[in-house]
Amino acid sequence: MKVIVIGATGTIGRAVSEQLAARHEVIRVGRSGGQHQVDIADPASVEALFRRIGPADAVVVTAGNLHFGPLAELDADKMNVGLQHKLMGQVNVALAAQRHLNDGGSITLTSGIVGAEPIRYGINATTVNTAVDGFVRAAAIELPRGLRINVVDPSVLQESMKAYGPYFHGFEPVPASRVAQAYSRSVDGLQTGKVYRVW
Amino acid sequence: MKVIVIGATGTIGRAVSEQLAARHEVIRVGRSGGQHQVDIADPASVEALFRRIGPADAVVVTAGNLHFGPLAELDADKMNVGLQHKLMGQVNVALAAQRHLNDGGSITLTSGIVGAEPIRYGINATTVNTAVDGFVRAAAIELPRGLRINVVDPSVLQESMKAYGPYFHGFEPVPASRVAQAYSRSVDGLQTGKVYRVW
Ligand SMILES: NC(=O)c1ccc[n+]([C@@H]2O[C@H](COP(=O)([O-])OP(=O)(O)OC[C@H]3O[C@@H](n4cnc5c(N)ncnc54)[C@H](OP(=O)(O)O)[C@@H]3O)[C@@H](O)[C@H]2O)c1
Ligand SMILES: NC(=O)c1ccc[n+]([C@@H]2O[C@H](COP(=O)([O-])OP(=O)(O)OC[C@H]3O[C@@H](n4cnc5c(N)ncnc54)[C@H](OP(=O)(O)O)[C@@H]3O)[C@@H](O)[C@H]2O)c1
Repeated sequence: MKVIVIGATGTIGRAVSEQLAARHEVIRVGRSGGQHQVDIADPASVEALFRRIGPADAVVVTAGNLHFGPLAELDADKMNVGLQHKLMGQVNVALAAQRHLNDGGSITLTSGIVGAEPIRYGINATTVNTAVDGFVRAAAIELPRGLRINVVDPSVLQESMKAYGPYFHGFEPVPASRVAQAYSRSVDGLQTGKVYRVW
Repeated sequence: MKVIVIGATGTIGRAVSEQLAARHEVIRVGRSGGQHQVDIADPASVEALFRRIGPADAVVVTAGNLHFGPLAELDADKMNVGLQHKLMGQVNVALAAQRHLNDGGSITLTSGIVGAEPIRYGINATTVNTAVDGFVRAAAIELPRGLRINVVDPSVLQESMKAYGPYFHGFEPVPASRVAQAYSRSVDGLQTGKVYRVW
């Protein structure tokens, strides 16, 4: 299979690309790095990426910014960081993919444990992660041509504990290689509308 | 208690206002109707509403537009209808309410059954309704001064079956008066971060 990984230069994306590359042709995409560049928050940039790469069998997104900060200082602009980047960025990829992927292809997005387990300063993350899961469950029932869509919902990564640890006391960190397994199940499996929790 | 109902001129809002008015002072707010007008999608308009009304003990939102339409024709603008109106509209009210409500006051928002039960053409609704539930669970743990926040998640209303019936075969419609009970439980109760399903 030809698999596009958007966010391939990141902590999760690197592990996913490595694991998938053992048996698939992986196209590594980043915002500034990778073989191709895209800004997922811009629908035109996403459309151009799919045209440039041509027919593919799967797309994986392991990218998407969120805002972290206290409720007392939250405003519409801060909420829209996650809504326009992590949520709509991934939605933009899914909407383009429904036209560009080969029949029977798959779309795999990324949410995160803060959707189900709110943390201090995590309002944007909880809102966006639950929305990504909801989008996937709804889009799955309308996708044409045997296309599938799933989402991987990881706990905090071991590799990210240095940066995020203080916000995740009591969470069990998971290695990126284990998170990557869930992306493999989505890409190589047959399920659709599924939230793969890795926690 | 002094209770602000935003969307008071609508199907759900009328029933909620009537039920709450039996024991509380209800301030009825609409976009064009009601005692006061507001556009919840505009943070400045929401801020002005709270200033105009002055101290209150509870705010209920039964307003928020969604986009309905096929996945094949979905784009970022259509997704943003529900994200900026039903989601951010209610978020704008909650963010202003955390400053304006009296100590121990409550915020009650509205999602809907399509969050959990995707329907044809309902992608924007599923995404937004799950996001509203997520926002409420996350905001609940950070609200100051004993403030509470909950969300009512109604099935399709009996009163709306004429308009929405064709999309809701197999759903059990509920009367507005029964949906209003859940808003009463939120306003008069003590729970926070709770999703009140009415189905
Ligand atoms: N790390 C964790 O512990 C964890 C846990 C649960 C969920 N998640 C979620 O998993 C996703 C990836 O996290 P991560 O820690 O692997 O991130 P990361 O290390 O910061 O990597 C982000 C990746 O996304 C790319 N990217 C950033 N903005 C982009 C844009 N606008 N368009 C296209 N690509 C863009 C980056 O490309 P460049 O390198 O070229 O900039 C990079 O490849 C995020 O949604 C995050 O919320 C992470
Ligand atoms: N009806 C159902 O079966 C059902 C089921 C589940 C969930 N819901 C959800 O419940 C909520 C209310 O539904 P409904 O059927 O009662 O709606 P509705 O009858 O159409 O009434 C909408 C109300 O919201 C007000 N409004 C509209 N846009 C507004 C804005 N930008 N700012 C402030 N107020 C605004 C309207 O004021 P004006 O009259 O002045 O325009 C009206 O009072 C929606 O979020 C809907 O998705 C409805």
